[in-house]
Amino acid sequence: MQKIEHLGIAVSDLKASEQLYESLFNTKVYKREEVPSQGVTTSFIKCGANKIELVAGSQPDNVIDKYISKKGEGLHHVAFAVSDIRSEMKRLEKEGFTLLSQSPQPGADGKIVCFLHPKTTGGILIELVQDAERSA
Amino acid sequence: MQKIEHLGIAVSDLKASEQLYESLFNTKVYKREEVPSQGVTTSFIKCGANKIELVAGSQPDNVIDKYISKKGEGLHHVAFAVSDIRSEMKRLEKEGFTLLSQSPQPGADGKIVCFLHPKTTGGILIELVQDAERSA
Repeated sequence: MQKIEHLGIAVSDLKASEQLYESLFNTKVYKREEVPSQGVTTSFIKCGANKIELVAGSQPDNVIDKYISKKGEGLHHVAFAVSDIRSEMKRLEKEGFTLLSQSPQPGADGKIVCFLHPKTTGGILIELVQDAERSA
Repeated sequence: MQKIEHLGIAVSDLKASEQLYESLFNTKVYKREEVPSQGVTTSFIKCGANKIELVAGSQPDNVIDKYISKKGEGLHHVAFAVSDIRSEMKRLEKEGFTLLSQSPQPGADGKIVCFLHPKTTGGILIELVQDAERSA
């Protein structure tokens, strides 16, 4: 894994949280993006080479509102950049980690992603992130 | 804030967690360090320019065991590197964030640090981290 690509933060009111985190990081949100496959809306803030992703539910039965109702707002997942997501998925599965999908899925910000089950990672929802391949 | 300096992960069994995270990140722990002021032991793993800090209680009544008994193992705090911790503390206090100490405290890994109260940061325990000043 090359670096922390982003921290995912579960928020209930995206606009209010954008203001809070803009004031915390002293910089503006640079992108807001719908992720229809997950029923969520995301906003991104830069912090050097890392990013902060605010994630709010936008469709019924989304994972973020479920998470917040159980655990409250706060850190939701950590994404790590990998150069070859398929070989990293293979390696991690062999090491005993549970993948939440058997192939990379489309993620926010033009990436392909795969999550690891928190039960196998010491309680942390971990996301592997690779820049999406260009179609031939 | 310049980058994510480290992610702090609360663990109950440091040795077992070192093995788990070494296998996850495919690299070895490079340092283990006692932090007597906090009653904890920390282990560090590199992930590119970022670090993962495993934190386990080592003294009675430490914050980590209390955290784990309430919330379980997992993400505990996020540390951001700052170049001038005192001016950043001043700026954040002015913005309405609550500092957990009025002056920087000695932290692990040769740093001076200050935590922000999670009630003012959307539920996340945030640590500001600066390289310690050399004494004159």
